Amino acid sequence: MPRFKLVVEYDGGPYAGWQRQANGPSVQGSLEEAVFRFVGERATVFGAGRTDAGVHATGQVAHLDLERDWRTDTVRDAINAHLREEPIAVLSATRVADDFDARFSAKRRHYVYRIIDRRAPAALFRERVWWVSRPLDADLMDAAAKRLVGTHDFSTFRAANCQAKNPVRTLDRLDVRRAVDGGVEILASARSFLHSQIRSFAGSLKLVGEKRWTADELEAALAARDRVACGPVAPPGGLYFVGVDYETAEGDGAARSLLPTHSFTSLAASSERRN
Amino acid sequence: MPRFKLVVEYDGGPYAGWQRQANGPSVQGSLEEAVFRFVGERATVFGAGRTDAGVHATGQVAHLDLERDWRTDTVRDAINAHLREEPIAVLSATRVADDFDARFSAKRRHYVYRIIDRRAPAALFRERVWWVSRPLDADLMDAAAKRLVGTHDFSTFRAANCQAKNPVRTLDRLDVRRAVDGGVEILASARSFLHSQIRSFAGSLKLVGEKRWTADELEAALAARDRVACGPVAPPGGLYFVGVDYETAEGDGAARSLLPTHSFTSLAASSERRN
Repeated sequence: MPRFKLVVEYDGGPYAGWQRQANGPSVQGSLEEAVFRFVGERATVFGAGRTDAGVHATGQVAHLDLERDWRTDTVRDAINAHLREEPIAVLSATRVADDFDARFSAKRRHYVYRIIDRRAPAALFRERVWWVSRPLDADLMDAAAKRLVGTHDFSTFRAANCQAKNPVRTLDRLDVRRAVDGGVEILASARSFLHSQIRSFAGSLKLVGEKRWTADELEAALAARDRVACGPVAPPGGLYFVGVDYETAEGDGAARSLLPTHSFTSLAASSERRN
Repeated sequence: MPRFKLVVEYDGGPYAGWQRQANGPSVQGSLEEAVFRFVGERATVFGAGRTDAGVHATGQVAHLDLERDWRTDTVRDAINAHLREEPIAVLSATRVADDFDARFSAKRRHYVYRIIDRRAPAALFRERVWWVSRPLDADLMDAAAKRLVGTHDFSTFRAANCQAKNPVRTLDRLDVRRAVDGGVEILASARSFLHSQIRSFAGSLKLVGEKRWTADELEAALAARDRVACGPVAPPGGLYFVGVDYETAEGDGAARSLLPTHSFTSLAASSERRN
């Protein structure tokens, strides 16, 4: 059967997460229902990453097999049409080889975690950014983040219910920068992540940004290989799954898509900060 | 009584507009209720612009008088605390002279209208951007927009229920540009605008961007000085009130705040566009 690759954007707010489940709506379930309305086939939509409830995506990647070799534009447009009012959109559909697997062919996954550090709560971007009322030192956060890059046992930074047998992962990139708009963004890249790993990083890096933890303390938390050494886990609304790299060319765009600043704070906020 | 100037950010989605009214919640009403919970005074919060239902603000400016000369940080934080779960935030509160009037002292108002022109609907930023499924030529839109700059009778571009006696306004700026993230933004500045003037501009400029109208046709629509000559009015969710200029220094930040690109399309979308 013809295999299609989808790049999907969604607002994670209304969903119990990517994965289809009994309790509550899921992104996967909504996509599969839209596919059924489109072709009348009960196809499984396999995602590259099983994002948690409330976590957003601008570049989730999925694959599915259909009976017919549809035009890719038709696949994209028809699924979008059947998603109707749901905050899920198929940005592109491409025809891929039968051995392409959105999850297992992934070379690298990219996430961005967004923080707005200002006195006033986030009004326009609530549930889409983590509001931290104290100013953060992004340079200190970035320097400390480098202590986590590389191959480590990340037991400290994974959820208690993480089902991965092996807590060792290779973190390729963990950058923290002050965005043009005045917010702070954390860019994380790795072949794969443990459950809640990036939100755990964000929660601990926030402590560094507030100067409550030093880079050494962050490194000590890593070395502890113990969940209790982790800072408070950051909320899901600030996390965006922004792209996946594959051997094939289609995936590379997602990696490049990390470059443009993805603004989320208000124009006024950035001017206020300058005043 | 001490007068305070507030810079306010809000998501216009849940509100019937800025102005207090019987039918439905308003931003002004929510702010006044928060002020009452804070000081127990029924103070009127006067806004610089009466945004319509669904229109957002990142730099709405308002003023109010309170019995006591509160610390400005206290005013900001207390109002925000009482706004609780509402998508409204006071970004700053400053003490201003008794003759400062958020509405009548305004020298210039700044708005941004955001469009995402891509095949896939907006998922993550629904209600915060106008989704146009066909690609727009931002350069053609910008060139045509220049025909509207200056002092004109803007009867074509105002709502039927616009209550202004005089349809003549001086448009200082109407720029259309392709944002870094791939969207299109329209920047409009003037001392004052007619009701629905910017959404009327946006709806007509979209026709230019789609090459369905020429710049000459846009200019002819202006010259018609007739509502029926206007293109379809753009939806409110794409419009942001981003700032106000005053003689006093506090307002200037809002003008500068037009400079940074305010991204709203997905990172993946921008990479898709490049692919």
